[in-house]
Amino acid sequence: MKLSTYWRSSSAWRVRIGLAYKGIEHELVFVHLLREGGEQLRPEFAETNPMAQVPVLEVERPGGVFRLTQSLAILEYLEELQPDPPLFPKTPELRARARELAEIVNSGIQPFQNLRFTRELTAAGIDWLPITRGYIATGLAALERHAAACAGRFLVGDAVSIADLCVVPQLYTARRFGVPVEAYPTLLRVEKACDELPAFQAAHPTAQPDFDPTRLLPGDGQPADTEPISTRLV
Amino acid sequence: MKLSTYWRSSSAWRVRIGLAYKGIEHELVFVHLLREGGEQLRPEFAETNPMAQVPVLEVERPGGVFRLTQSLAILEYLEELQPDPPLFPKTPELRARARELAEIVNSGIQPFQNLRFTRELTAAGIDWLPITRGYIATGLAALERHAAACAGRFLVGDAVSIADLCVVPQLYTARRFGVPVEAYPTLLRVEKACDELPAFQAAHPTAQPDFDPTRLLPGDGQPADTEPISTRLV
Repeated sequence: MKLSTYWRSSSAWRVRIGLAYKGIEHELVFVHLLREGGEQLRPEFAETNPMAQVPVLEVERPGGVFRLTQSLAILEYLEELQPDPPLFPKTPELRARARELAEIVNSGIQPFQNLRFTRELTAAGIDWLPITRGYIATGLAALERHAAACAGRFLVGDAVSIADLCVVPQLYTARRFGVPVEAYPTLLRVEKACDELPAFQAAHPTAQPDFDPTRLLPGDGQPADTEPISTRLV
Repeated sequence: MKLSTYWRSSSAWRVRIGLAYKGIEHELVFVHLLREGGEQLRPEFAETNPMAQVPVLEVERPGGVFRLTQSLAILEYLEELQPDPPLFPKTPELRARARELAEIVNSGIQPFQNLRFTRELTAAGIDWLPITRGYIATGLAALERHAAACAGRFLVGDAVSIADLCVVPQLYTARRFGVPVEAYPTLLRVEKACDELPAFQAAHPTAQPDFDPTRLLPGDGQPADTEPISTRLV
């Protein structure tokens, strides 16, 4: 199994946690999203993913290589291939809740902090940072509200679920973009519980072979105390 | 079962198709997204969905009312409650493909045509229409490329799947926003096959009790031959 990844892509990070949590052996393929305008934009990468994004999972199957994109679809697939340990809760209602919280991150926040978005708005002379921050804050507030009702040790009850795999990278990105996170105590408590697990440690951006410390900003991965500069973020 | 919906919300539309396709009895609750600034923004609606969006599903369960948001999470839940007729293909690989294509619409396109986005950019004096059109075109091109390999009568093989439930409303919205769709022959062929099914007909915006013909634009639901006016779209 191969995973195309970039150390700071929050979508690839989710899948890295999933693979590590399930103990699935895999190889990483590094796609540098910034170098030379972005390796994901090369014409040959469109064969791999016409959306020009990481993550991409490649699996050897009897009929040939099966290639899959979209982090949540990949995590559902990993769950089907290897159900144990599970990334989805035990009842239909709790599974639904975990998928709902994952989607709040995946479709409610992430599209607006994605590189394409920030680049495109920058090119159009638009200050995207307040827009991005607004989406992050709305999404995190909604997650906190849900979490207050459904969280145990983790976001949905007492076991790790797909929701945790989405929220941990999202909190990191929130700090990176200077969004205050103190107003989300349940999310922060869950993040702390996740941080103690080897799978989350192994998947962290700073633990990746392609980690690039020169691209870290003040506040990266820490509570924001400095204002990131929009132009340095893209 | 109750579904909060708005006739032209493409996310609510997906769930309407799912409910109709599975023949699940339900009641519709109408949330007018435009009237008085948008009923979804009223403080009391935050109790229902802190993300201030439709759809919302409410189900009577032994422990009380179970409330669920996010169209794809809702469709996965409906599949678990009532697996027949299925909205997911039979093998893990094809199920993964269906989820992947659904996500290309759900997180790759829809966030950028969503009312909050178009309103927010309009308020900031930004012409959002080229940005939105760009995301729609990229997403449809990726879907067409996938579909060329995996489509049968429908988007993934010969049975309706969650991917079709996402692509049909997306094509409608593409036309509404003046995006040419002729370059996507596989998607158009699948759309035609879906249009013949009673479930897709029943879920169509024009078949909804809250359908408002005065809000239709030239080109709505048809190949665009006129330029929509950005300000009228929000």
